[in-house]
Amino acid sequence: MIVVLKNNVDKKQVDSLIGWLKEEGVDTHLSIGKYQTILGLVGDTSNVDEDLLNGLDIVESVKRISEPFKNANRKFHPDDTVIEVAGRKIGGGNFQIIAGPCSVESEEQIIEVAKAVKASGAGFLRGGAFKPRTSPYAFQGLGIDGLKLLEEAKKETGMPIVTEIMDAAHLPYFENVDIIQVGARNTQNFELLKELGKIRKPILLKRGIAGTIQELLMSAEYIMAGGNEQVILCERGIRTYETYTRNTLDLSAVPVIKELSHLPVIVDPSHATGIAKMVRPMSLAATAAGADGLMIEVHNNPQKALCDGPQSITPAAFDELSKEIRTIHKVISNNP
Amino acid sequence: MIVVLKNNVDKKQVDSLIGWLKEEGVDTHLSIGKYQTILGLVGDTSNVDEDLLNGLDIVESVKRISEPFKNANRKFHPDDTVIEVAGRKIGGGNFQIIAGPCSVESEEQIIEVAKAVKASGAGFLRGGAFKPRTSPYAFQGLGIDGLKLLEEAKKETGMPIVTEIMDAAHLPYFENVDIIQVGARNTQNFELLKELGKIRKPILLKRGIAGTIQELLMSAEYIMAGGNEQVILCERGIRTYETYTRNTLDLSAVPVIKELSHLPVIVDPSHATGIAKMVRPMSLAATAAGADGLMIEVHNNPQKALCDGPQSITPAAFDELSKEIRTIHKVISNNP
Amino acid sequence: MIVVLKNNVDKKQVDSLIGWLKEEGVDTHLSIGKYQTILGLVGDTSNVDEDLLNGLDIVESVKRISEPFKNANRKFHPDDTVIEVAGRKIGGGNFQIIAGPCSVESEEQIIEVAKAVKASGAGFLRGGAFKPRTSPYAFQGLGIDGLKLLEEAKKETGMPIVTEIMDAAHLPYFENVDIIQVGARNTQNFELLKELGKIRKPILLKRGIAGTIQELLMSAEYIMAGGNEQVILCERGIRTYETYTRNTLDLSAVPVIKELSHLPVIVDPSHATGIAKMVRPMSLAATAAGADGLMIEVHNNPQKALCDGPQSITPAAFDELSKEIRTIHKVISNNP
Amino acid sequence: MIVVLKNNVDKKQVDSLIGWLKEEGVDTHLSIGKYQTILGLVGDTSNVDEDLLNGLDIVESVKRISEPFKNANRKFHPDDTVIEVAGRKIGGGNFQIIAGPCSVESEEQIIEVAKAVKASGAGFLRGGAFKPRTSPYAFQGLGIDGLKLLEEAKKETGMPIVTEIMDAAHLPYFENVDIIQVGARNTQNFELLKELGKIRKPILLKRGIAGTIQELLMSAEYIMAGGNEQVILCERGIRTYETYTRNTLDLSAVPVIKELSHLPVIVDPSHATGIAKMVRPMSLAATAAGADGLMIEVHNNPQKALCDGPQSITPAAFDELSKEIRTIHKVISNNP
Repeated sequence: MIVVLKNNVDKKQVDSLIGWLKEEGVDTHLSIGKYQTILGLVGDTSNVDEDLLNGLDIVESVKRISEPFKNANRKFHPDDTVIEVAGRKIGGGNFQIIAGPCSVESEEQIIEVAKAVKASGAGFLRGGAFKPRTSPYAFQGLGIDGLKLLEEAKKETGMPIVTEIMDAAHLPYFENVDIIQVGARNTQNFELLKELGKIRKPILLKRGIAGTIQELLMSAEYIMAGGNEQVILCERGIRTYETYTRNTLDLSAVPVIKELSHLPVIVDPSHATGIAKMVRPMSLAATAAGADGLMIEVHNNPQKALCDGPQSITPAAFDELSKEIRTIHKVISNNP
Repeated sequence: MIVVLKNNVDKKQVDSLIGWLKEEGVDTHLSIGKYQTILGLVGDTSNVDEDLLNGLDIVESVKRISEPFKNANRKFHPDDTVIEVAGRKIGGGNFQIIAGPCSVESEEQIIEVAKAVKASGAGFLRGGAFKPRTSPYAFQGLGIDGLKLLEEAKKETGMPIVTEIMDAAHLPYFENVDIIQVGARNTQNFELLKELGKIRKPILLKRGIAGTIQELLMSAEYIMAGGNEQVILCERGIRTYETYTRNTLDLSAVPVIKELSHLPVIVDPSHATGIAKMVRPMSLAATAAGADGLMIEVHNNPQKALCDGPQSITPAAFDELSKEIRTIHKVISNNP
Repeated sequence: MIVVLKNNVDKKQVDSLIGWLKEEGVDTHLSIGKYQTILGLVGDTSNVDEDLLNGLDIVESVKRISEPFKNANRKFHPDDTVIEVAGRKIGGGNFQIIAGPCSVESEEQIIEVAKAVKASGAGFLRGGAFKPRTSPYAFQGLGIDGLKLLEEAKKETGMPIVTEIMDAAHLPYFENVDIIQVGARNTQNFELLKELGKIRKPILLKRGIAGTIQELLMSAEYIMAGGNEQVILCERGIRTYETYTRNTLDLSAVPVIKELSHLPVIVDPSHATGIAKMVRPMSLAATAAGADGLMIEVHNNPQKALCDGPQSITPAAFDELSKEIRTIHKVISNNP
Repeated sequence: MIVVLKNNVDKKQVDSLIGWLKEEGVDTHLSIGKYQTILGLVGDTSNVDEDLLNGLDIVESVKRISEPFKNANRKFHPDDTVIEVAGRKIGGGNFQIIAGPCSVESEEQIIEVAKAVKASGAGFLRGGAFKPRTSPYAFQGLGIDGLKLLEEAKKETGMPIVTEIMDAAHLPYFENVDIIQVGARNTQNFELLKELGKIRKPILLKRGIAGTIQELLMSAEYIMAGGNEQVILCERGIRTYETYTRNTLDLSAVPVIKELSHLPVIVDPSHATGIAKMVRPMSLAATAAGADGLMIEVHNNPQKALCDGPQSITPAAFDELSKEIRTIHKVISNNP
């Protein structure tokens, strides 16, 4: 962290700042120049409050050089985190596909899709029970009934299940859920993140609607600071000015996150583009970019899906795609 | 709403769609062209699920022409909504300034600031008790203790108080809060919005970090659909690529919202820019743009503020600014 | 400028870098920390090539602390630049309105508008002769004939004229133009900027479609580095994800630019919003934010304008608005 | 194209609009609803001026349904365009790698790199002679001398060359250049595009800094409207709020463009990310997404590159990468 001091600052104030930082466990180096005086903070600065420094009378600006996250930081944990659920590993070279419908609609639907995607090689079943919808008038998901149907599908197929939580108050209903998903609109719902830090279950944390990579890692840090170290990050597209796709899938985020963090990172090409036709090319691209897994919407009847039909692919298309993904992943893995 | 049909669609399917829409209470007009067939939906379409239509086999694309919000829509409620709290009115030509520190820090601080801003003409006292912070290691606010200090300041000065809620589970503590604020990271926390729809207290709803104007109005719609019609909208800057200011204050949103909706809209120049020096010009600009009020951070000692010090102004600066704001507002009001 | 060095760099390489920087006239201060070694560059670094430093083997990252522009920098020229054309001053407290149609269409039209806006207090006449249009099939402006009609209007009314250049090859035709405008699509047309640096005529430089404030100032620097110091900057809205307005008018840019630079800055509310109804509130807001002038589209028959009709206001509306702008400017000027 | 009319419009005016559109060769269908009257334009509307319609008194809004581009539109030219230069094909399943340094620096450098990338399978040599740099103080390229050095390398190796043009006035110097590149800052330099429409040489057109896919296709349309049909489109990252990478590479643009247009599309992962380490994963991802080629910066000594060193890879790294790209492309091609 670099603290740029104002011109003509009082030496006493600078000394007092240096002393205070020393107490906080941070060493400093002072560079006095003709135009600018700079204070370099060279220890572990993840606990230093940037806003506090910025607010000081003698400070002109503060620039971070090291990252403000710690538990999620690869510098302090060089080895890849591998998360294991029901014998399925994600991260550290292990690749998983999570597949299923946007929304759970009926027992028949979810079991049919579960069987199909399992047969095609998916490791996890996804399905929305609590649905965050922009409009209060749109279908909001089956809620607790939806969770029960997912559990049915799990019993029937043996597939571990992934589904989204929207409120910490719903946590008791998620006991049989294998991976709890935090959606893009709740990435910075800090009260929810704190509660998820208290449990010991993998969390699938999506990047915010217009979230930075750093914010995603800071949100992971919230969960990890609570003691829950099982966080899977998910790139799902970011908001830009481009309107042909619903969001702009930022695949560079995959190698960037892998460099900054040891946590596994997967990609959701369905929500990112919002177009079924784009799911194949973006799934293959995400795999080639080095993702640890994919989350793909599959519906046995996309035309009748109660939400996000346009972005779902059929079980038959998923079966084809699944093979191509495996082939690409093999090519990548042989040349790490 | 316009539904563009695919080429060579089956006439039966089109008839079945028209029939279904009729049942939903929506009239249609069919235009069959050489290249495209278009179905115009010309009634109240706010309940029509755009995603559902998009998912149909025969549909190429769907374009909304009327807005998907209803309770918040000026078309159905031409008159300005005026919200009144403790004798203070916002909206319909009534202008209010909400002022106070970013965070409540101590009894002395909050009471001192409250007295100062009251004397300078602020109508409401603001102060953060629950603080949404990007880092789990940053100061998170005094929580319930902070709420109690705000109530103290209210007793002392008679000023109604405005403070942020981060979780519906905290609602019982907000009984003595006059206006409950929903922050930019919770604008699409739909579970929270639903709970706020059940109470009968004004809600100050901030635009999301990278939220569209329509999303802001849809979030207001969530609250209003629950029966709580007292929503104040707040422009607080949006995320763009520009880095000189923390956010880009979108003042065009003020006249746009005023055209689309009857709800009052205020502006927060402090969070928008993140720079104390920018608070004056942006406050005056917001007033000139036709805002119904301002929310300004004032701290008796910005240099020592526990959060967001750099964007707070002093009580003395606020006193000056308050007068200028009134003058500009008077000029605008005389030429509506 | 801060150069963060890689861990375990060779001392000899560091000394060689320090030596090279000294030759370039830049002093350095070295801070060796446990995790990071930092080199502070504390002289005038506007000539230092950031990319070159970034490319060095021993460098991890480079962070600028001082601005990379010099001629446009207020630090080196504390006093406001005042540009004077035909007795009309812009900058340093002097406010001007530039008004006229988007496109010059006919002699009758341009003279009628010129007379009207002059009578309402506009200082300059604008009108497009060369029009940058997204589509090759849209009206491209009258070109050289348009310039001649503008000259006619100038003769008739005595108003100095402002019009856009799209190619340095057209410069000979601009001899009688008083202020040459560079449009948002050419803000980084560096070959054009270099040519404009060679002439001695005020340049009205618009911010790029999605240009940063710093890029705008660097483009001004291109012109000024050539010896032409008469640059007027223009905020005209930036591209964001919001679609209600054509662009998002970034009024914070006004006070930011005024702090960073001594050049005058004006605002174009017509192109920014693309909506006639928004011109009034955004003009007043821009004035309240401290702009040195406005550029407003006025058309005697907006319904029949060959381009950008929707954003033009009538002469009558301009007359009303002009008075309000003056009133707001007076309020602001009395409280600088 | 859909024209939404204002409420209570005069029937005569509507008839007059319908008549005028008929003259322009566009059929209309009128839908009169309770709340809205809609005019559907169902012929070829690429010549209809949207702004003109928007400006009419009776029009509330205009929404395009078909694309405003024609020559570049796959609807009118279903087959892939294949561009052939010196026996090398791009498009229609043919994949090419364009490689070379950001800037031409010396004869030795450019010939060494040319030989190396040729040996590794690159089909084209790239190298910048005219360099668009944000700062007037940064290295601006060798200009005409740089073009001569490229021609030397072409003679020596037989590789066709690709280099950027910044001003139509420089065209005479580009006679021996095989593919002329238009950079991201000139994508909407319409005067330049018009001139390039007059020649008969392939143009490599980069997407603008914050350009939409539609704007890219409209800029291609400018060139094609002039009669030059050989346009290669290039995704090179767009500007977003994310700062870890220089731009956000929008790989979804590849399948989107392939659906909308018949023109070949390649990807530049070097400029997009600005980080050498990201070139490999993003090259593989782009290939997997279906790109027709890649443009990769290779420098024999990235540490000493006069510009953009940080994003260049070494010839050895390129050799490895080239093989992986071919493997991925083979996987994709077998499953079209």
